[in-house]
Amino acid sequence: MALIPSERFERMENPAAREIFKMLELPGVISLAGGFPADDSLPARDLEILAGEVLAKDGPAVLQYGPVAGYGPLLENVSDWLQRRKKITAAPEEILITSGSQQALDLLGKLCLEEGDLVAVEEPTYLTALQTFNSYRVRLLPIPCDGEGMLVGVLEKTLAVCRPKPKFVYTVASFQNPTGVTLNAKRREELLGLAEKHGLHIIEDDAYGDLCYEGEAPPAIKSMDRNGRVVYLGSFSKTISPGLRVGYLAADREARAKAAVVKQVLDVHTSGLSQRIVCEFLGRGRFERHLESIRTGYLKKRDAMLSALNRHLSGLAKWTRPRGGFFVWVQVTGPFDSGAALPEAIRRGVAYVPGEAFFTRQGGRDSLRLSFSGSDPARIERGIEILGGLIRDYERC
Amino acid sequence: MALIPSERFERMENPAAREIFKMLELPGVISLAGGFPADDSLPARDLEILAGEVLAKDGPAVLQYGPVAGYGPLLENVSDWLQRRKKITAAPEEILITSGSQQALDLLGKLCLEEGDLVAVEEPTYLTALQTFNSYRVRLLPIPCDGEGMLVGVLEKTLAVCRPKPKFVYTVASFQNPTGVTLNAKRREELLGLAEKHGLHIIEDDAYGDLCYEGEAPPAIKSMDRNGRVVYLGSFSKTISPGLRVGYLAADREARAKAAVVKQVLDVHTSGLSQRIVCEFLGRGRFERHLESIRTGYLKKRDAMLSALNRHLSGLAKWTRPRGGFFVWVQVTGPFDSGAALPEAIRRGVAYVPGEAFFTRQGGRDSLRLSFSGSDPARIERGIEILGGLIRDYERC
Repeated sequence: MALIPSERFERMENPAAREIFKMLELPGVISLAGGFPADDSLPARDLEILAGEVLAKDGPAVLQYGPVAGYGPLLENVSDWLQRRKKITAAPEEILITSGSQQALDLLGKLCLEEGDLVAVEEPTYLTALQTFNSYRVRLLPIPCDGEGMLVGVLEKTLAVCRPKPKFVYTVASFQNPTGVTLNAKRREELLGLAEKHGLHIIEDDAYGDLCYEGEAPPAIKSMDRNGRVVYLGSFSKTISPGLRVGYLAADREARAKAAVVKQVLDVHTSGLSQRIVCEFLGRGRFERHLESIRTGYLKKRDAMLSALNRHLSGLAKWTRPRGGFFVWVQVTGPFDSGAALPEAIRRGVAYVPGEAFFTRQGGRDSLRLSFSGSDPARIERGIEILGGLIRDYERC
Repeated sequence: MALIPSERFERMENPAAREIFKMLELPGVISLAGGFPADDSLPARDLEILAGEVLAKDGPAVLQYGPVAGYGPLLENVSDWLQRRKKITAAPEEILITSGSQQALDLLGKLCLEEGDLVAVEEPTYLTALQTFNSYRVRLLPIPCDGEGMLVGVLEKTLAVCRPKPKFVYTVASFQNPTGVTLNAKRREELLGLAEKHGLHIIEDDAYGDLCYEGEAPPAIKSMDRNGRVVYLGSFSKTISPGLRVGYLAADREARAKAAVVKQVLDVHTSGLSQRIVCEFLGRGRFERHLESIRTGYLKKRDAMLSALNRHLSGLAKWTRPRGGFFVWVQVTGPFDSGAALPEAIRRGVAYVPGEAFFTRQGGRDSLRLSFSGSDPARIERGIEILGGLIRDYERC
């Protein structure tokens, strides 16, 4: 007899997205769909050596139960990193290690969200964040974006009339998933001002923040936060390894103490071996050198995608020009339905994620997300060429 | 400005338990409190070698994103293990890897529980399970236990009059936490029969099932399940390593497919490195030899605790005689308040967990949980001697 799923589950599930993701796994297709880091960007040999070292030196402690909030020296290394590279002041007691930053989103939901609460999100935004918030049966308040990120002015007008106020504003402020755009400095200040004024909290999901290929990212919103209005989410999944499942949140001391209560219920603590490996990688200064080297590789891929788009989609679509991260957002100017066209795209040999997946309700059918992180420049060129042909044929129909 | 916790959080939190667990961390105290496996039971050197091997052979794949439901060969090895050792038939597509079996509990809550649902639990039961269920704002239905486990007859009478029926019956059927008792074979059949009759599901949490020191454990309830009434939870935390955070659930195909949707929202997937290490440990037949060797060690510790109890607590208390697992449950016959006495116990040099922590509301003040897993026989003897003195002094007051 089947388990009867909760109403929460029905809201969280996205069968359309599941069907899409099944299609994307087909072999022989150039996938510009997944948000995976490049295989050759993972420091496999270094991590292998570090795994051996931490187990040889401290095996039983690594393998035993550990502190709920995270391995002490890792908390210190993350605290140092945040101060040095992001000008974020967060003591080790204000940081909590999560099993990937995805878990931090679920944790914050469990800690704070009541059914019916409002959560403001960029539209489009990270698909699994939408599922996570929906699992807490909140109402989502989509805020539109342009090439400089969330239209904070629209949020301001909405907040002026909206009762009760949203509990969270969720933003992937730098090199956003799915658009690749970055919230500009002025809007970051304005957003923090709105949080102060209306008593909101901001969830700043900075999963891609370390992957800036051009210029400098604007300061993290958390670095300007004087009153504990921002919960900052960081991840090592895009830069060191997704498979180790190590992310973190930085909040104030009180919030972190409460978060630890939730963390224990979620999974007791994050893998001790994963934490130690990441800790050593950070502590020995390898992370900064590693970031330098992978940025070069990703910059080439981004450039390959932008020139391929110029060659094959000029006059057919507009697209974003990300300064970091993994994604380009393409909006087709003529008639196009990215969801309906996907099976044919895959038949021709290229996969993307249809725009609809990133919208709270409707929208995004003229758009699609492309990822340049996982393919080499030649495959990117070929994939975009196929896509251009597809859009052109679609227009002719 | 502090984050405002949800009502869900307030129900989940157990400040008394938190205060207790702070006390238990004091140095220089013989801890009979924690439910940790013995440091020297962890196969550190084997796991170090396996970690090196899987990373050397397949580094980028281990470190990349992996399947949400778990690493394929691990699912196969778990399926084999369940069939061979537990007579549980579960195909790889019916198994889902979780970040420790604690996560499986939270996952099932998220998948199935609505606010106000009834969940039947053994009383006393696993503390964090109570917190997990409370986080879904359910009503808990405590079923009393004796030396043969849950009084299934009491459950039967309750079910006859109870509307609506509970959604789950949660049982740690073998070597229970906190009592160490085992649900006998007859009651297992009766419990499954009740689930069939009343349309309930059983969550069989078998975290300690592989740690049988005397005779054989009764068959897993899941091994008798013909109609998908049982979700079985397994764990490698007590036998291979808690720090790797690898557990699993076995359910029917449909439930496992839904569970995978929830798992993605919870933390995308469990650490790929942890999964590969456990997979190799299982696949090369090391697990069975390893279990043999650690059972011998735990049996000595259990015997040390039972003889120390005989020496120092005879006439003062009754206690259970576990045939496996980590725990002995002590019920003091004279006047005693295990929570109130804990600070004095710690001052004298021994720590335990007061019985109250394992009860849904009130109860257990005359009782306490002792763990023999983490201490050596000499310290167990000394700890119980101190405890005997304490109870005697308490009676005199």
